[in-house]
Amino acid sequence: MSDDAKTAGDFRPQARSPHGFQDRRARDLSAEHAILEAVSAVYSRYGFEHLDTPAFEYADALGKFLPDSDRPNEGVFALQDSDEQWMALRYDLTAPLARFAAQNWETLPKPFRRYAFGTVWRNEKPGPGRFREFIQCDADTVGSDRPEADAEIVAMAVEGLQAAGLPAGEAVMAINNRKLLNGLLGKAGVNDPAARLTVLRAMDKLDRLGAEGVRLLLGAGRKDESGDFTKGAGLKADAIDAVLAFVEAGAATRSATVDRLAAVVGGTVEGDEGLAELAAIDAALKGMGVDEEAARFDPSIVRGLEYYTGPVFEAALVGQALDEQGRPVRYGSLGGGGRYDDLVARFTGQRVPATGFSFGVSRLAAVLAARAEASQGPRGPVVVTVFDKDLMEEYFAVAAELRAAGVPAEVYLGASGLKAQMKYADRRLSPAVVIIGGDEAANGTATVKDLDLGRQLASGVTDNAAWREGRPGQMTVPRAELAAAVRRIVDASAPAAG
Amino acid sequence: MSDDAKTAGDFRPQARSPHGFQDRRARDLSAEHAILEAVSAVYSRYGFEHLDTPAFEYADALGKFLPDSDRPNEGVFALQDSDEQWMALRYDLTAPLARFAAQNWETLPKPFRRYAFGTVWRNEKPGPGRFREFIQCDADTVGSDRPEADAEIVAMAVEGLQAAGLPAGEAVMAINNRKLLNGLLGKAGVNDPAARLTVLRAMDKLDRLGAEGVRLLLGAGRKDESGDFTKGAGLKADAIDAVLAFVEAGAATRSATVDRLAAVVGGTVEGDEGLAELAAIDAALKGMGVDEEAARFDPSIVRGLEYYTGPVFEAALVGQALDEQGRPVRYGSLGGGGRYDDLVARFTGQRVPATGFSFGVSRLAAVLAARAEASQGPRGPVVVTVFDKDLMEEYFAVAAELRAAGVPAEVYLGASGLKAQMKYADRRLSPAVVIIGGDEAANGTATVKDLDLGRQLASGVTDNAAWREGRPGQMTVPRAELAAAVRRIVDASAPAAG
Repeated sequence: MSDDAKTAGDFRPQARSPHGFQDRRARDLSAEHAILEAVSAVYSRYGFEHLDTPAFEYADALGKFLPDSDRPNEGVFALQDSDEQWMALRYDLTAPLARFAAQNWETLPKPFRRYAFGTVWRNEKPGPGRFREFIQCDADTVGSDRPEADAEIVAMAVEGLQAAGLPAGEAVMAINNRKLLNGLLGKAGVNDPAARLTVLRAMDKLDRLGAEGVRLLLGAGRKDESGDFTKGAGLKADAIDAVLAFVEAGAATRSATVDRLAAVVGGTVEGDEGLAELAAIDAALKGMGVDEEAARFDPSIVRGLEYYTGPVFEAALVGQALDEQGRPVRYGSLGGGGRYDDLVARFTGQRVPATGFSFGVSRLAAVLAARAEASQGPRGPVVVTVFDKDLMEEYFAVAAELRAAGVPAEVYLGASGLKAQMKYADRRLSPAVVIIGGDEAANGTATVKDLDLGRQLASGVTDNAAWREGRPGQMTVPRAELAAAVRRIVDASAPAAG
Repeated sequence: MSDDAKTAGDFRPQARSPHGFQDRRARDLSAEHAILEAVSAVYSRYGFEHLDTPAFEYADALGKFLPDSDRPNEGVFALQDSDEQWMALRYDLTAPLARFAAQNWETLPKPFRRYAFGTVWRNEKPGPGRFREFIQCDADTVGSDRPEADAEIVAMAVEGLQAAGLPAGEAVMAINNRKLLNGLLGKAGVNDPAARLTVLRAMDKLDRLGAEGVRLLLGAGRKDESGDFTKGAGLKADAIDAVLAFVEAGAATRSATVDRLAAVVGGTVEGDEGLAELAAIDAALKGMGVDEEAARFDPSIVRGLEYYTGPVFEAALVGQALDEQGRPVRYGSLGGGGRYDDLVARFTGQRVPATGFSFGVSRLAAVLAARAEASQGPRGPVVVTVFDKDLMEEYFAVAAELRAAGVPAEVYLGASGLKAQMKYADRRLSPAVVIIGGDEAANGTATVKDLDLGRQLASGVTDNAAWREGRPGQMTVPRAELAAAVRRIVDASAPAAG
């Protein structure tokens, strides 16, 4: 680096991070860290093994490099290695799992359960709140075709989100099954892939347009408020009835939903398979004590149905409001997953069943932060001010004492006077500062200034008189009692647990 | 992905990770995780703020892209963004800190203390144990020129390594100072940069060649055992004496070393500055209770002296053996750091003083693992075997009960019979399996098989008869007592703490 700087002479690069990439400060990091700690503890208890794969994969192993192209797809960050092979940064955690599973299949215990969290990169156009680098957390079971493997993923996701701090009742795992949909569409005579897609898109609009809007889109078509006409799927009346009965089959319990679905898709081969899978999932969820509010069968869940091969999951935030069926209204999605049965087939030609769930850590952190708006963020350390340079050793002894008492602390190490030091401590969100000048040193005392109190008074959280009695803004204590006095101030200001 | 797979037809990529990159499994990850948790707790207590910067930086901001080149230096992984700007993956955590500090200088509290841990990438030739992706952990103070800022970094590194599990006495922070060396070389009349480098190289060989070997290299030159001649620095006799007195000035206490150094470099401008800095560092270390064994002044530390501008640190493993001076012999290095005063100057033209310490997380994990060879790695979950598919709900209830009792557990979800399930559990390093068949279900019992016992018998850790009495290999217990019985087995096998 020093060589470069020399050669570069007076060249001054601009100090900015690349487009679509962000620096993350303590507040965000501690929220994400708490999520990952809580979730990985849950996943470990379920017997899932932590795995980390490299940031880079060969582009062909990611499925992002077609043999007849001269470079990888756009959408990934790719570069050529010294041996001319194209490498790309992982854009999710599933493709590297596929590579790992294929590479180690012979020696892995099967089924192989793993969880992973890590950065993924997308070479896409960034936008507000849309970054090209973010953290995902995934759990997958590879090598089991049992529906109970899906149930386990669902139960784990439920428990993981709760452990991360999202109260039961504020999120729901909504479960659907591709096979039911196949049974439905087969019965309705919709076999053409493009027509299937039109039907799926119509189903996905239930929340927005209601049953009547969906009915139009399944039939001849629908004109919206602006007068624009969307051509419909052109289904016959009884097929439309079946599709609507399907998307509206969600009931208060999982088994009641299965019963209602059976009336629509029962008797078709894939429909019956899907129903049996849901019944097995329900039994396993009951065994694990996952209640009806936490995991629902929801036939209106369409996203992912094109990609997944069996059960599909979506973790959705729910509000207090109920829809016409008396079910909590779903808000945004936190994550999703499902069963995909060609995980390693690209490598080995052998189909290996797999199922998993993935969520974005920043998204969950944002949701939790919004819930906890009122609570305080991370605090700064207590600042031991420097009044007299001859007392430096003593200042460091104070800081060490405070740390030993569990209070983050630092000695001020800038070059400014006491007033600027107070400003610095305020900016650091320090709960308190310690001042030891010549007088204090001579008579064995120390002065503590309660900065939190000042902040609370300034913000009107509390009024002057009430505090003055119980909590002085500044006090001088015997040196031996300093750590205890600071500890009391820090504890008085600590945000309530939770 | 499914689209790609379709287009690619029968193309089968090879399942392998790119050259120089590795997958990391649970055992390594949990060791690294424990280190990062312990160290970041210490760093936070010192008032250091957690910061994470993106994987990518613009190549010019990294100082890896000279204005007169058409692409970034080798050594970094670089690619062009859609707007043709070169981006590169960070190769350390210092260059991104420089960019961040320059970008946010106006609004940061000063001095700014931050710690960071994260992956760095080096586009270098991989080799055995030499990877192109690894994790570093850094702490730096930016904007303080006080030697106490260096002392704080040293104290934090000492406490961090101990918190990570390295016992006091097995590592030492060795401290030197570039200014002392400048004073020494100025006094010895060595002003030419090339000649300075030759002297430094000779000093660095003290461990290997002893004082007499270094004396030859400082003078006319030295012939090694094979007969090869290395030309020396050509110093005069009194200059050689001074250099040798310098590298051998290390004494039992920091202040005694300062005194011995004063005799060699005292009276020179830079020498006196360096001595004053060491004295201030010693006082702050004393204030923080960092003892003489944990942090030593060691004038034989040469590495980094060309790069750093003031104090230089190296965290070294020490053995039980003592050298001729009665000091513990240093082994490999765990990490290092020092003061560098041009952190943001590349961006802003303004010199900002900074000091920091960095260590490689895998290296420390490997050292700790070697210490703990005998202790067991992470355990597998208890496996609830599947004897009868009609009992699946019950099996999941058992697994949930075990987890609630703090025991990692899973239901077997493969398709094989009981014998294969036992093999699977063994491979997972499960402490025990639970078996509930028709009989057990009918009379409200469950069978537990103690797999750890089997392993211990097989490895000869214990003998058959002794165990049989106190610890049966298999037992059938009332269903209600199952979780407690499993818990007992898991606890009996748990590795001793530490």
